Amino acid sequence: MTTHVVALDVGGTSMKGGLVTAGGDILLTDRRPTPRTEGPGKVIATIREFIADLAGAGETPPTAVGVVVPGPVSDNTAVYSSNIGWRDVPASDFNPLDVPIRLGHDVRSAGLAESVLGAARHQQDFLFLSIGTGIAGAMILNNTPYPGATGWSGEIGHIPVFPTGEQCACGQTGCLETYASAASIARRYTESLTRASSITPTPAPATPPTAEDVITRAERGDPQATEVWNEALEALTLALATYTLLLDPTSIVLGGGLSQAGPTLSTPVAERLQRKLTWRTAPQIHHTLLGTNAGMLGAALLAWKSTQPPTPPLDVPTHPPVP
Amino acid sequence: MTTHVVALDVGGTSMKGGLVTAGGDILLTDRRPTPRTEGPGKVIATIREFIADLAGAGETPPTAVGVVVPGPVSDNTAVYSSNIGWRDVPASDFNPLDVPIRLGHDVRSAGLAESVLGAARHQQDFLFLSIGTGIAGAMILNNTPYPGATGWSGEIGHIPVFPTGEQCACGQTGCLETYASAASIARRYTESLTRASSITPTPAPATPPTAEDVITRAERGDPQATEVWNEALEALTLALATYTLLLDPTSIVLGGGLSQAGPTLSTPVAERLQRKLTWRTAPQIHHTLLGTNAGMLGAALLAWKSTQPPTPPLDVPTHPPVP
Repeated sequence: MTTHVVALDVGGTSMKGGLVTAGGDILLTDRRPTPRTEGPGKVIATIREFIADLAGAGETPPTAVGVVVPGPVSDNTAVYSSNIGWRDVPASDFNPLDVPIRLGHDVRSAGLAESVLGAARHQQDFLFLSIGTGIAGAMILNNTPYPGATGWSGEIGHIPVFPTGEQCACGQTGCLETYASAASIARRYTESLTRASSITPTPAPATPPTAEDVITRAERGDPQATEVWNEALEALTLALATYTLLLDPTSIVLGGGLSQAGPTLSTPVAERLQRKLTWRTAPQIHHTLLGTNAGMLGAALLAWKSTQPPTPPLDVPTHPPVP
Repeated sequence: MTTHVVALDVGGTSMKGGLVTAGGDILLTDRRPTPRTEGPGKVIATIREFIADLAGAGETPPTAVGVVVPGPVSDNTAVYSSNIGWRDVPASDFNPLDVPIRLGHDVRSAGLAESVLGAARHQQDFLFLSIGTGIAGAMILNNTPYPGATGWSGEIGHIPVFPTGEQCACGQTGCLETYASAASIARRYTESLTRASSITPTPAPATPPTAEDVITRAERGDPQATEVWNEALEALTLALATYTLLLDPTSIVLGGGLSQAGPTLSTPVAERLQRKLTWRTAPQIHHTLLGTNAGMLGAALLAWKSTQPPTPPLDVPTHPPVP
């Protein structure tokens, strides 16, 4: 078996783990539930166990471990996750092995993976937009994920696209996520059916429709589905126009569950984006190449990085010293 | 006279030039009109002459020249300016002297100056927001102005804050600039007076009110002025909330003509921004310390940089090579 690292992508619902080579080949992969309801201690214990089992499944011991998690994070501390409920967990708490471990942010690491192994290879400046239950962005700037001053960059799901619109679960008004996440598309369609049935009584569907169902129905001309889908596309386009005007990216890579809609999503987004940007060329819209493996592959890249000699600091002085 | 550089900030209306030391002291400064209506050739000739005259005014020859201009620019080419009308002007065309010259973007260089000499000293990640006739931003990320993939970053004046709002002069809809620039505040107030006078005939003012007048009248309770000023504050707050959620800056530095309103501008912006950001702390709001000298001092920093030995490249590899 080739030299490899243990890579783990910890989500709110499940974790995806694997053994990954330096070239990004996945030697084996597995998935386990995240026992979130049992508290952060149980999640940490489950992560340790999963890492030990993955390491044991390899023919040789792993070279390092990479773990990507939601919420702000440094190389060696999981700072905070509202979803999982932890605060300031040192990387060593996750690591049952005697090899280096490196932590990373889930979406930013997925963006890193797309830049090294995926849809944005050789692109220095792009946005990886993950559209699933929520919406978050990884901003790759100068070839590196940009964390912001306090690790909270990329919260594109909560920018106010419709400033007098619906209240978001986060407490703010008109957030992108409340119109265009997979969960919101499904919820808003169900709500529109309920409103319609209070006028013309029709039986509510037995199982709630998914975002995928809404898109399919919109394509068939269902008026409520069309309205909800159009509002999602408009919200996405406004957010991407804003991103483009601020950050001037080469491209936007769509990932997360909703990106499985393929050209049904990307074609109207690309067309609307260019119409909105009247005086500049819109960046290209790509689909993730790594799909649901992006986060895990990002974790693997971080693990491999921990085995490299240190690189020169990025904040080299670029101006004369101030006396 | 101390060792110095020639620094020049080329605006659409006038140019500000000076001799500046390595510590940022301005030894002398002068202003000349930009002969924009006479074509780019005349502007370039005027720049050459201004640089020669500034150099001649020093007791010793300058060490280097820095020139900042509107529009996209590289270190050695002024790529484009719709305002001045030039395309791909090599830096050498501006330089009558036998010393190095360095070009820069006007707003990004002003942001650099605030980071080195001004309101954001020692801050690695902040927004310099210039609010004047137009609105533009300089994004200082990791201690360096970020140009974007093609030099068009920071167009915060044209992000859609009110997506179903007024058409901007740029052709897009609901841009920040069309509500909150000094020119737009004055225009929108005059328009509201015209609308009001078509209902209750009142004489139009002899000279059109400025943004400063509108703010003063809003403070005195004038209803039309209050409405226009509130919409400008709301537009600014939406744009800064979006910037904060995407970029996670330490602070926002307000510059440009409108920033002379001082706390009348910054206090309501800071309060509204924190109200809008329900789940995260708003960045601090500061005022420019360098005022109208920011661009020229940025030009001086670029000139001094051209005299330094080259620094290591910023794009050091941060991940293992891809086979």
